[in-house]
Parts: sequence; structure tokens; C-alpha cells
Amino acid sequence: MINFVERNRSPKYIQLYNQIKEEITQGTLKEGDILSGSRSLASTLGISRNTVDNAYGQLVAEGYIASRRGVGYEVLPLPRLDRIIAATHSDGENADSVSTGIVGHRVEPQNGIKYDLTNSSHTSDLFPKAMWKKYTLECMETLAAESRLSIYIDKKGDYYLRKNLRTYLERIRGVVCSEEQIIITSGMQQSLDFVCKLLKGKKSTILMEEPGYNKAASVFYNNDFCVETVRVDENGLVTGELPDRLDIGAIYCTPSHQFPTGAVLPIGRRYELLSWAKSTGAYILEDDFDSELQYYQKPIPSVQSVDANEQVIYLGTFSKGLSPAIRMGYMILPKSLTEVFENRFKDYNSTVPLLNQYVIGRLIETGMYDRHIRRLNHIFKKRYEKFEAGLNRLSDRLTVSGNGRGQYFLLTFSRQDNQDRLIEAAARQGVRVYSTMQFWQDKAACPPGTLFLGFSKIDIEDIDDCVERLIKAWSV
Amino acid sequence: MINFVERNRSPKYIQLYNQIKEEITQGTLKEGDILSGSRSLASTLGISRNTVDNAYGQLVAEGYIASRRGVGYEVLPLPRLDRIIAATHSDGENADSVSTGIVGHRVEPQNGIKYDLTNSSHTSDLFPKAMWKKYTLECMETLAAESRLSIYIDKKGDYYLRKNLRTYLERIRGVVCSEEQIIITSGMQQSLDFVCKLLKGKKSTILMEEPGYNKAASVFYNNDFCVETVRVDENGLVTGELPDRLDIGAIYCTPSHQFPTGAVLPIGRRYELLSWAKSTGAYILEDDFDSELQYYQKPIPSVQSVDANEQVIYLGTFSKGLSPAIRMGYMILPKSLTEVFENRFKDYNSTVPLLNQYVIGRLIETGMYDRHIRRLNHIFKKRYEKFEAGLNRLSDRLTVSGNGRGQYFLLTFSRQDNQDRLIEAAARQGVRVYSTMQFWQDKAACPPGTLFLGFSKIDIEDIDDCVERLIKAWSV
Repeated sequence: MINFVERNRSPKYIQLYNQIKEEITQGTLKEGDILSGSRSLASTLGISRNTVDNAYGQLVAEGYIASRRGVGYEVLPLPRLDRIIAATHSDGENADSVSTGIVGHRVEPQNGIKYDLTNSSHTSDLFPKAMWKKYTLECMETLAAESRLSIYIDKKGDYYLRKNLRTYLERIRGVVCSEEQIIITSGMQQSLDFVCKLLKGKKSTILMEEPGYNKAASVFYNNDFCVETVRVDENGLVTGELPDRLDIGAIYCTPSHQFPTGAVLPIGRRYELLSWAKSTGAYILEDDFDSELQYYQKPIPSVQSVDANEQVIYLGTFSKGLSPAIRMGYMILPKSLTEVFENRFKDYNSTVPLLNQYVIGRLIETGMYDRHIRRLNHIFKKRYEKFEAGLNRLSDRLTVSGNGRGQYFLLTFSRQDNQDRLIEAAARQGVRVYSTMQFWQDKAACPPGTLFLGFSKIDIEDIDDCVERLIKAWSV
Repeated sequence: MINFVERNRSPKYIQLYNQIKEEITQGTLKEGDILSGSRSLASTLGISRNTVDNAYGQLVAEGYIASRRGVGYEVLPLPRLDRIIAATHSDGENADSVSTGIVGHRVEPQNGIKYDLTNSSHTSDLFPKAMWKKYTLECMETLAAESRLSIYIDKKGDYYLRKNLRTYLERIRGVVCSEEQIIITSGMQQSLDFVCKLLKGKKSTILMEEPGYNKAASVFYNNDFCVETVRVDENGLVTGELPDRLDIGAIYCTPSHQFPTGAVLPIGRRYELLSWAKSTGAYILEDDFDSELQYYQKPIPSVQSVDANEQVIYLGTFSKGLSPAIRMGYMILPKSLTEVFENRFKDYNSTVPLLNQYVIGRLIETGMYDRHIRRLNHIFKKRYEKFEAGLNRLSDRLTVSGNGRGQYFLLTFSRQDNQDRLIEAAARQGVRVYSTMQFWQDKAACPPGTLFLGFSKIDIEDIDDCVERLIKAWSV
């Protein structure tokens, strides 16, 4: 059954593509099945034939189906990894988020996967557990003494955290703001949901980088925005191609560490971006998600720090620096939007637990947070360099592109290898690596031979073994 | 400057009313100022004269302005309490949520207010601090051992909590569901935001009880729904007056403890509500916010428990039972909406810290949560009875309507006293009591002589003194 979700603004051909792909991975459509002809399917669904052709074309490009002259499109054998994924109900980036539901029971590797090269969870040793415990107990006493253990929290979040965060971001990222402009949120997606509600009704479109952070796109769609993309090259967002249109509410971008390519936007493009924003009236949603994590140089200042026209909404989280399980982020509004926020969310309460806000405020104030970040950078540097050195043994086949930042890098294969087969080969050796397809709005534009690898969830002593397995997988 | 917020669906006259009221409380409009004539203001703003008349009428009813023959409407002296509130930037129900920003500094009573009869924060002794500490430390170790300290959490929340919550709600509230139907959220407003996104695009209107929970209305407005109301009488929602229309997406209601009147919806009306939902296709948003807190009888089962047609979305939080500062709630979707949720929020992560979810799961599983609720009920019963006995000394002037549930009651004055003057008189004696005006969408329909009092933030030994002060305030 094909359903087009009402008001889902992702293009119809993508919806159709996703649904057919799902039927294939879930086994409803089986190897050798012949799909309906595009004309007849188009007429059944009441959509244009072009839409069906686009969806089929995409499925051909990804190797799910193949055209057979005189017969139509035939379902191909499912790559093994898709079967594995379908069987375990994992969903790629969040594969590790499925709870065991059994207290005290250690999660065992499933399906022979020994190393999961995700960037979205951390080895437990990276979490400052002792500090967190100490400050949790201490702050609970403070809040009790202040009669603030059981109160609703101001919609902007706790003032003590906002005060310390302001100082910290000014020092580390050059961010210029007052405490009044800072809103503490439950993470990036909630920040973006707020932004959508602030912009709604005026403009219809939000721009994204291509490739970009797919989870942001979902929030824009769910708030009824149209999403369009702007190309990314080796220097990040191609600002020269920003469309000169007035229906654009904002551009969501990652100037200091492009996700997922890792590019850093040069200063010239930063000014071009700002000047485009000024001329079109669009906001720049600057997602600075992991820019504290730079282990070679000092990070360059944020775009917000050079914004003279109040057009940057600065976004960050504690997911990379502390833990994604803490669910805390922040957004910094331009002064002119602060009042709009106050009015529109007048009756709202903060969604972020007060105790956690207080603890992080304390970590920052005491300098423990800085110390923790230095430690993270030290560890990530060692992990990255071990991967880089190891994988460079395959330099005739692939290029490692990391740049001393964050918790991930891309692999670009010099031959036009197929992502699914590379992923499947790695899985057969017990290593989970990720497709870059998820980051592309236009799946067909995704270069087939690029993979996304994270090193936040692998211990340093396991990297040699992991690299050996990857080399074995990809040397055949 | 009067601004009509684009796409704000609260009626224009309410917007106008709010803005003029704000100018008065903030001192932009001063005692003795004469407002523009309604015809000229209507023409300046490009709105109908009727809208201006309604706003002015409301301001007259509340005593902000008065009509002076041949002159127009004159601004009256501001009641003292409004001046106090304006000066301290407090916002009524959340007055206590303003942080001091100074660690270790105890919040001192401001403006001579010694007792704050809010229902939205608790005395610190009600929070199970020792248990919370114990389980926090224990669960942190468990999560570390499971390699789950630093992961993204499934959008529905942690399975362990959902499993325990399911058993708990089945036992306490008769809720029938599987773990798959439970979504853990950051509180009621986030649950409602999800609901809006699930219903959006199909129906345009959400119904509320009048009076009802004003903070829910804000979420509906922010998601572009029209809000209409249905009357509440001494038995709660007047189900016979539910409109038979197909544009209604849902009714938001509080059947087990109407907010703020305290009424319990009789079983006959529950079935009438369900049958109306069946015939119109609307969902029932059953907010069961504090129904564990019943100190005389066992709570009657939820409407969800007798729903045969999958039309109830059951909503709850831990704000009343544990603490509003924890920011945790849940919603239970009908089976048929579970898949819609999965699709629409496919790429979302939970916004609720995993550790907190785990701790609450543990509290429930070990039976400590039940024990804690029994203790709360014991304390609230004593507090309520002390208030009731004390205030009944004024029974010639007022009626106390609590019914052995929750953390609040209403006072109805037998003479048609003015809320603002009653509140001001109490404030002069150092007691903050609350207007019921905030709970009415149509401010003009609010009975002038009703007050809203909570007893979650006052210690038992202070109640005698507090009652004496109220009696002194209202005996004049």
C-alpha cells in the first residue's frame, strides 16, 4: 500500500521511493518480483508518471531494482546489510539507542557486529561520571536550600546556566549576546522546532546544505516548511549559489565543521553568507554542534561573532561535549527575536530538568567543563590518528578526510564502489560503518563510494583490530 | 503600539485587550489617561469597531478602565497587586520560577509576600530527595555498565521506563495499552505539541473546557489550531453541548479532576463524550494530570480504560507526583496513531534525559513511587483539611470547593466581589492568591468573585497563620 502523507513536503518521488524501498527491505516485495509499470502505477496513485520514473530511477541507482527489457523493473537480491537492519529494527545512526530493558544486563554485540563506528554515542569512559555525581548531589542540596527543587522553570531556562554559558561561548566561540538572548532547550531538534514556530507564517522555505544534517530536515518538514538545498564543496557551503529569493526564511548550516563533509567555511564565504542574509532577510541558523572539539588548532570564531545585522541564530548542544543522553542544547536569538519569543511562548515552561541545568552551570563555572573538553580532544586526537594511519594503508583505494575536528570522518573510495556493498563487506568482518546517503535530500546526487565513520564509540585499544578488519573487508 | 500577531488565532479582541492591559500595568497608560474612541481606534488599526468595543468592555469588567459620559474611557488607578506584579516581572502561576542566579543564596520572600498559595511548585520536603540520590547513583552505574551513558534515546523514550509505567498506569488508572503506545515526553506541553503535529492538516479546531488549562491553549495556538470552548458545570464538561461538527480534531479535557474547578466527570457523561468522539471522529485528549492524588477515595478509572474505539490520547506527567522541575510526562496513543507517530517522527530523538527516565523506572519497579504517592496524599489531606476548616469560618462570605483531590481548591465568594480587590487585600496581608481569569478563554465569562488557591508550597505549620491573614484580609 502506497500512502502519501498529507502535508509531508518531502517530494512525492522520495515518498514513493522510501515506501517501495521499505517493502523491499521488509520482504513484502521479494527478489524476482516485477514492479507495476510506471504508467499504470501513476494512474493508480493519481500522480504523474514522472514521479514514478524518478522513484524507480533512484531505486535502480541504489541497486534495489533493475530494468529488464520487455518485462519492467525487477526486484534484485537484497544486500545482506539491509536484511540485517530490517531484522534488528535498527535505524542506522540510532542503532545503539534500543534499550535492553533489563537492568544490569550488558548489551552484547548483535549480528556479529563487534565495532560500531557511529558518531552518535560515546564510550562510557568519555562521560565525566565522577564529576557529574559530585555536582548532582551538591546542586540538589543547593536547590533544596533555595526552595527550588520543585518548581516550574522559566521558558528560557535557568538563569545561572545561561549566565555561565554566555561567558563560556564568548570566550570559546566569540559569541556576542546577553543572557536574555539565550534559550536552553532539550537539544538541537527542539531548538529548530522553536525556530520554525518563530519564522512560521512569514516565509515558506528553509535552505539546507547538501549533504547536511538529515534530522534537521525532519523538523522543518514537520513544521510545514519546504526544504531546498544548496551545494557543499570542499570549502563547505557554496555561498555563491545561494538563491536571491524573498520566500526563504532561513538557511540551516554548519559553517565551522560541515556535517558530514567536515569542511570549514572560509572567512570570505562567511561574509558572503551574511551579506546574502542581509539582502534577502533570511536568518542564518548556525549549528555549531561540535566546534569545541578541535585538536590541532584553536577553533575559528562563530559566524554569530561577526554578524552585524542580527541575522544569526546560533545553535549548540551538550551532546558531543558531554553526552547525547543528557538532552540539552541552547539557541541564541538575535535581540530583535527575543521579544517575539517572549510573546509567542509566554505560557511555556522550560522542558529541561532544572537539576541538569544547574549541574552544567556549575561544571562551566568551576572550569571543570574546560578540563573535560581538553581531555576529550586529547582522546579523540589519538583515536583519529590511529584510524588515519591505519586506513591510509589502503590509500590506493580510498581517501580519509578528517581535519582534526569532531568525532567523525568520511572515506572516499577512488573507484566508484557501491556504498551498500562496502558496508556489507565491513559488516561481514564485524564492523558497522555508515552510508552517507542519509545526509542527502536528493538521494540520487549522493556519490556512491563515500562512507561515514565515527570514532566516539570505539576504545583506542580496539582500533588496530578494527582497522585490520576493514582492510580485510575492502581489500578483496 | 498595538500589534496583531500574524497567525495568532486567539481572538483579535483578546489580543487588543491584552496589549492595552499590558500598557496599563506597565505604566505606559496612566491613571486618568483617556483612551481613543472605539470608532477612531478601529479605523486606525483596520479592525472592526465591534472588536474594540469587546476589548474595552472586558477592561471595564475587570476594572482597568471606566466609561465617562461625553469623554470616553478613562484609565483607572491600577490595583496594587498589578503594580507589584508588573514591578517584579513575575507572571502569576510561575512567580516562583524566577532564578536568583546566586548559588547557595536562599530566596527571600519578595514584596512582603510570606505565603504563596500556588499549585505549581512544592515545598522541598515533598521531593523524595534521598531516594532520588540513591537511584541516580545506582542507575548511573547500571547505564555505564550497559554502555548506555552516552547514547541517543529512542524517540519514544526508554523501554524500561515504558514497561514499568505501563504496569503502573494499568493498576492505578485502568489504562489499557502496550509499551509501544507509550511516548515519554518533556511534559504536558511537549505531549500536546506532538499531538498537534499528528492531527495537523486534517482538522482545524481543538476544543477546550471553559474554564480550562490555559497553557494547553498556547500550544494549540502555536500550532495554528483554532481553539473553541465547551462549558463546564459542577459535574465537569457539559458533554450535551459538544458541537456535532467534523472540523474538530480533538477535545482537550480533564475528566478525573477538572482544572481548575475540581469537578469529576460522571460516568454517564464519559460515555456521552466517547460516543460524541465516535460520531465526529475527534480525539479525546484526556489530561489525567494529578489523579493519583486522591486522599479520600480510590480514583475512578480513566476514560481511556473504557474507550472501545481508539479515540483517547491519554496524557500525564510526573510534575505533580514528583516535581515540575524534573520535566517529564508521557502520552499514550491509540494503536492506530502509533504508526503515524513512528512515521512522522522517524528521525527524532527523545528529549528526555535517559538517566531521569531510568531513575523513575526504578522508583516504580521497586514500589518506592507508590510509597511516595501515599506519603504525598497523607500530607495534602492534612493541609487541605486545615485550610478548609479555617476558611469555613468565613462561610457567610465564601465557599471552599475542594474535593479531596490534588493540590488546589477554588474559593467562591457569595457576594460578587472583585477578584483583583480580593487578591490585593490578601497580598496586603502577605498572602499570594490567584485569579481564575487566566483559565478563561473568554475573559468576560469568568465569575468575578472566584479565586484559585494551591497548597503544595505551604508547610502545614504555616497554614494557621496563613488562614488568619486571609480572614483578616477578607473580613473588612
